[in-house]
Amino acid sequence: MPDVIFPLDSTRTFVDQEKVGHNRWHPDIPAAVTVTPGQSFRVDCREWFDGAIRNDDSADDILNAPLNSVHTLSGPIGVEGAKPGDLLVVDILDVGPIPLEEGPLAGQGWGYTGIFATRNGGGFLTEQFPDAYKAVWDFTGQKATSRHIPGVEFTGIVHPGLMGTAPSAGLLATWNAREGALIATDPDRVPPLALAPEPEDAILGSLTGDAFTTAAAEAARTAPPRENGGNQDIKNLTKGSRIFYPVFVDGAKLSVGDLHFSQGDGEITFCGAIEMGGFIDLRVDIIPGGMETYGVSENAIFMPGNTDPQYSEWLAFSGTSVTLDGEQRYLDSHLAYQRACLHAIDYLTTFGYSPEQAYLLLGAAPIEGRLSGVVDIPNACATVYIPTAIFDFPVSPSVSGPVTIDPGIGAPHSSFG
Amino acid sequence: MPDVIFPLDSTRTFVDQEKVGHNRWHPDIPAAVTVTPGQSFRVDCREWFDGAIRNDDSADDILNAPLNSVHTLSGPIGVEGAKPGDLLVVDILDVGPIPLEEGPLAGQGWGYTGIFATRNGGGFLTEQFPDAYKAVWDFTGQKATSRHIPGVEFTGIVHPGLMGTAPSAGLLATWNAREGALIATDPDRVPPLALAPEPEDAILGSLTGDAFTTAAAEAARTAPPRENGGNQDIKNLTKGSRIFYPVFVDGAKLSVGDLHFSQGDGEITFCGAIEMGGFIDLRVDIIPGGMETYGVSENAIFMPGNTDPQYSEWLAFSGTSVTLDGEQRYLDSHLAYQRACLHAIDYLTTFGYSPEQAYLLLGAAPIEGRLSGVVDIPNACATVYIPTAIFDFPVSPSVSGPVTIDPGIGAPHSSFG
Amino acid sequence: MPDVIFPLDSTRTFVDQEKVGHNRWHPDIPAAVTVTPGQSFRVDCREWFDGAIRNDDSADDILNAPLNSVHTLSGPIGVEGAKPGDLLVVDILDVGPIPLEEGPLAGQGWGYTGIFATRNGGGFLTEQFPDAYKAVWDFTGQKATSRHIPGVEFTGIVHPGLMGTAPSAGLLATWNAREGALIATDPDRVPPLALAPEPEDAILGSLTGDAFTTAAAEAARTAPPRENGGNQDIKNLTKGSRIFYPVFVDGAKLSVGDLHFSQGDGEITFCGAIEMGGFIDLRVDIIPGGMETYGVSENAIFMPGNTDPQYSEWLAFSGTSVTLDGEQRYLDSHLAYQRACLHAIDYLTTFGYSPEQAYLLLGAAPIEGRLSGVVDIPNACATVYIPTAIFDFPVSPSVSGPVTIDPGIGAPHSSFG
Amino acid sequence: MPDVIFPLDSTRTFVDQEKVGHNRWHPDIPAAVTVTPGQSFRVDCREWFDGAIRNDDSADDILNAPLNSVHTLSGPIGVEGAKPGDLLVVDILDVGPIPLEEGPLAGQGWGYTGIFATRNGGGFLTEQFPDAYKAVWDFTGQKATSRHIPGVEFTGIVHPGLMGTAPSAGLLATWNAREGALIATDPDRVPPLALAPEPEDAILGSLTGDAFTTAAAEAARTAPPRENGGNQDIKNLTKGSRIFYPVFVDGAKLSVGDLHFSQGDGEITFCGAIEMGGFIDLRVDIIPGGMETYGVSENAIFMPGNTDPQYSEWLAFSGTSVTLDGEQRYLDSHLAYQRACLHAIDYLTTFGYSPEQAYLLLGAAPIEGRLSGVVDIPNACATVYIPTAIFDFPVSPSVSGPVTIDPGIGAPHSSFG
Repeated sequence: MPDVIFPLDSTRTFVDQEKVGHNRWHPDIPAAVTVTPGQSFRVDCREWFDGAIRNDDSADDILNAPLNSVHTLSGPIGVEGAKPGDLLVVDILDVGPIPLEEGPLAGQGWGYTGIFATRNGGGFLTEQFPDAYKAVWDFTGQKATSRHIPGVEFTGIVHPGLMGTAPSAGLLATWNAREGALIATDPDRVPPLALAPEPEDAILGSLTGDAFTTAAAEAARTAPPRENGGNQDIKNLTKGSRIFYPVFVDGAKLSVGDLHFSQGDGEITFCGAIEMGGFIDLRVDIIPGGMETYGVSENAIFMPGNTDPQYSEWLAFSGTSVTLDGEQRYLDSHLAYQRACLHAIDYLTTFGYSPEQAYLLLGAAPIEGRLSGVVDIPNACATVYIPTAIFDFPVSPSVSGPVTIDPGIGAPHSSFG
Repeated sequence: MPDVIFPLDSTRTFVDQEKVGHNRWHPDIPAAVTVTPGQSFRVDCREWFDGAIRNDDSADDILNAPLNSVHTLSGPIGVEGAKPGDLLVVDILDVGPIPLEEGPLAGQGWGYTGIFATRNGGGFLTEQFPDAYKAVWDFTGQKATSRHIPGVEFTGIVHPGLMGTAPSAGLLATWNAREGALIATDPDRVPPLALAPEPEDAILGSLTGDAFTTAAAEAARTAPPRENGGNQDIKNLTKGSRIFYPVFVDGAKLSVGDLHFSQGDGEITFCGAIEMGGFIDLRVDIIPGGMETYGVSENAIFMPGNTDPQYSEWLAFSGTSVTLDGEQRYLDSHLAYQRACLHAIDYLTTFGYSPEQAYLLLGAAPIEGRLSGVVDIPNACATVYIPTAIFDFPVSPSVSGPVTIDPGIGAPHSSFG
Repeated sequence: MPDVIFPLDSTRTFVDQEKVGHNRWHPDIPAAVTVTPGQSFRVDCREWFDGAIRNDDSADDILNAPLNSVHTLSGPIGVEGAKPGDLLVVDILDVGPIPLEEGPLAGQGWGYTGIFATRNGGGFLTEQFPDAYKAVWDFTGQKATSRHIPGVEFTGIVHPGLMGTAPSAGLLATWNAREGALIATDPDRVPPLALAPEPEDAILGSLTGDAFTTAAAEAARTAPPRENGGNQDIKNLTKGSRIFYPVFVDGAKLSVGDLHFSQGDGEITFCGAIEMGGFIDLRVDIIPGGMETYGVSENAIFMPGNTDPQYSEWLAFSGTSVTLDGEQRYLDSHLAYQRACLHAIDYLTTFGYSPEQAYLLLGAAPIEGRLSGVVDIPNACATVYIPTAIFDFPVSPSVSGPVTIDPGIGAPHSSFG
Repeated sequence: MPDVIFPLDSTRTFVDQEKVGHNRWHPDIPAAVTVTPGQSFRVDCREWFDGAIRNDDSADDILNAPLNSVHTLSGPIGVEGAKPGDLLVVDILDVGPIPLEEGPLAGQGWGYTGIFATRNGGGFLTEQFPDAYKAVWDFTGQKATSRHIPGVEFTGIVHPGLMGTAPSAGLLATWNAREGALIATDPDRVPPLALAPEPEDAILGSLTGDAFTTAAAEAARTAPPRENGGNQDIKNLTKGSRIFYPVFVDGAKLSVGDLHFSQGDGEITFCGAIEMGGFIDLRVDIIPGGMETYGVSENAIFMPGNTDPQYSEWLAFSGTSVTLDGEQRYLDSHLAYQRACLHAIDYLTTFGYSPEQAYLLLGAAPIEGRLSGVVDIPNACATVYIPTAIFDFPVSPSVSGPVTIDPGIGAPHSSFG
């Protein structure tokens, strides 16, 4: 186990730590710590809401989740010698929940999946699921089960939802310009089209005074993935993976957070992985000038590890780019995946699950989402694959019809009603 | 090997056969043959352009590919006792190229991948690739290589691009209405938004006379996937797969065609699989009333087989929903996948491939396309995974930079220019 | 599909064909056909007993199986330019059952697994199973089921049990000397320690007259694997595999046969795979002088294909080198694997299978047999892994105990008694 | 991370700890700690030689390795309510190296593989390798590399080499009787046929006085696997595995140790895994009366996890039961595996490795050893599979011949000579 270069004390809040992380992207946030190429090190990561979500049977905490404060990122980590134009090589040596006794914070033996209410963020299927729901997952080794979704157990593909390098000032300006233009097309939309810079609740590491004020006014929110990687939510960035990030500022300034015990492709419930705090062990290196050498102007290249859970039997659902109201859209893979997920949810409810239980499950379990056909005008075809082995009952269609499971206490529910 | 219930003579055209198939969807096309539940049978399938594409070094045939005549489907196959509301269970027992000596038709030891010109269909990246290109692939067992794309060899995931049941009259009317409405928003677009019914070149099995004329005027084109399955282009519908199709008409009327020796997720070049003729062995069964029982109102459920080629090391690229011009779009996974594919193409060109060689490769090889993040406003994140073992040179980023390959004669190119 | 260079007519016996194969190894057997390096070709193969085993519910044919006549090998196939000291590269392009309508010969939609009686060959567990048993397997695509062993279905790993090059005269003499010496230690043993040359029932291709008589007296039996490959029964030599055989005679003289629809590691019932006739498509090439270059003095090197059926959940049993009578043997992995298999059989009988059903299943299904520990004096540890997905009932241990299956009509049984 | 119920202080020797483990099997060794069914807990484990092997470039420590003192087992762990006849269910929740900063003990960032000299234990190929050798492996995340074997890197399949329940007095007597009888057949053999009870260096937990003396005189050595599991060295008993052990004494008395960072099937160099200290997280449960219910009289049943490293391309070597001197043995799978391993070693030396480097590699890397044919008289066929991706050079046979690697400083060597 390598040295902990960014420790977090579980008994204190994210801002009350030896080293303070950040929840916005800005090039001026100073490196909290510096490492050398070839160095291995451990970083502690706080669950993305800094402990606001509790292990209980109410969804009130999800209903009122403080989205202004996310994500609680650990870093920036400066890398000696990294220059703009380089590729930063990041090896994920290990990643897991908080290695401590059970306690009140997600990651200490448990995690959660939430569905945000439409008025507080929404999600992939927010039109069908406008209220807030929660499922708490218990960890036994690398396996997860939930009292809120009985009948399933799966091996987590543990990964960081968010990792990336700092943007340059120019790149940050580009982000703010293009996202601002989008917001301006419908500024009052609920949920919003994008999140503008928001000084309130901004945490910017060791920045203070005027520097803080200036940066907070323009620092980018962490929700979207962008050219620097960021909140990609790629579920296969697990132990053994190698990622190549573009470097935009001296020292690269790597940050990481939003650890997931498990997630389905798409993170469809927005709060859709099994969210937790934990640790991640990294090793960094540099390919000097690698961006030009390998034609990388933006976005990360990565190589997944070879220890992801293996499943060999899948039940899959397809969807096309026709809305639920029957309107034909043109090659819309996003819509097609929504329809595929809704088909999967409809199917699972015939076994006795509530729709929200099925939705939460698709966000948390290691499902695969594929862009199967993207050219067959006018219909894109997307597919979602569910491993059958995660169910403790036979889940495939048969002449005898579905068995009926006991849905238990169901998923906690809250609404602004 | 089961009995051939739908034979095709390779020396004759698709319409000059013992049993004539179809290239439009319509409930009135009579079953060409009828099978019983539990029966196994073989169906011959013609390459989708009925032999118009040749094994040569010109892309003129792709430039002028007769899109009006596709797809040359084998069927309809009636299933005794199938009723609307049932689920039709279809097992793919085997699928492969034409089991004959080498010859002039795709499937006889070779196949092809094409990029359509924008004026003749276009493709996923038609803005970047407006001209026509072609790559011919040679088959050795289940492996494919191409003189037009040197340095790669991969094991094909052989599958039918298109399989489905006949629509009911009502469902057909729904298709025509919604697709017509979309076309009406921009009727002169190139390439078109959708394809309206087109009597010219329509083939409707054994329909003749007025019945033919009436049906041809309203029969749906076969390009898009729809509620009946259809042209889903799901690359994992291979040997060993089981599919559950909704039944909309008496006898189900199953049709199949558009066989692919291999394809990447998305079939991104439109003519993007390795196209070929061949055979498919099927077994059918019925789940009476299965649509209601399992909550299936539309679209197929499927379970892939367990003999797909295994690759364990992947090189992956991500993309977000920002256009090449820098415009921010809202959660557009389709665009995000385009950007991921363009990143992969940019990368491969640093090794010496031309952009069109890289594009054709992504259409043909068993790449995986994933919807990685669909909720992180405003950017969707899509990823494309390429198995590294298909290259005969080291393809991962390294400090020493890319090796330089000999791109050979390149991909044949033709334009309307 | 490549040209058939060694055809077999299913309506005629093995010796009554256009080209006659062989059932003994001898360098003087002339090549039945000659191919060139780089050539792809198809070879028909007869089921190893030339049709003596029937699709019925009696084990009399297994009891009296004509072991003198095995194996009915197709070849020898001469390879132009191959010289002693070369490595012969053999690619398995495809392999499958007889591509004809259902009929009386194994391979035409069905195959069989047998347990030989101790007095007629025996098997791995012949002390526990001294009588003859049989199971008939039906093929649906690549899946096998048996009326004699209900409750299981699995995807076959189709492969040739036997393939190899001809021995040189010197190598043949070595074989006869060393095997003769072993036989001499207990010449009357039942079953025998080894099989001496046996002119009766010898088939030697086109050899006739004195040449036949001389060769038949010294030609080696085909049962054992040896330096030339031969009857290795390696279950993973499937489609997509590449094998490197040492070349001992001019032209290499490759022969192949004993096709298996599926087999467990070890082929433990001796007649233990699912035996069938079929076809195999091969491509050959030469590495000149490859034996010395790569340090290969004997035995084949091989690279399995990447399309074997994938299973991800296994139930495994261990065994050590202590006899059933409690005698401690020294690091005997063979005995350890016997004990592991017996433990698996004991376990499966608690679900309602008869011991012989379980034994036949282990011979036929794609189980894996591992040498887990070979140094921990005095006990070797061997393990046998059974994929749980082949059972249609839950097969893992649980607090609720085993479900009880209906063993059906059981495995046909015959004895000399 | 669960509570540590059996801690080890890395700065103190195995006997100088808060709880003292044991290095012999005996029913009278008291439980060091007791757990309840359903409980998860962590156990620290010492490297099997208690720190005698150093991270240096000499093999003197391997030459003189103190075999009398092995294995340093953690436990016994009593399980409340477990009775003879039960099955003890053990889930491996996690297992890994010592989670501390780098230090002098194997497991703290490094491990080792050794070849014992014939006069001090020997190994699978001791006739060919009579001297002592060592390779030190460095850990980066789950990957291992060695300065003594350049050109390879692989993902470890971390597992305990030894885990098991305590024998009953009757079972212990059986062991001593049968192993004693074997030793008596050749009491002076080097290496010995088996290891008799040895009071010298015996560690028996908290036993003292006469009880210690009595037990030490009859306690079984831990080298062999036996009915209680024990030193099975099954490389796939990794994170996510579930094992079912027979219970022979009240409380089951589970013990565990001999952790391996990685191992090839067979652990062929005896000290043949990558040996290390570390931790293992377990969860236990009971199936009352499970031995009779499931027909388990002895030996463990297990279900491997689904997160083992995936490799999809293998280079494989076969061997038969003929000795290097050309003597024919009868169906000896142990010998066949020796020959297969020697073939692999011969092959690897053509690339520039020394034979001992190749031998050490086969002991440490995740190779697979299979019992391929066990019935084809007189030759057993065993095979060894090496994943090609572990080499950073092309390792398959080709017409161009092997590349030549730099073997570096080679493997440290020591001999009694």
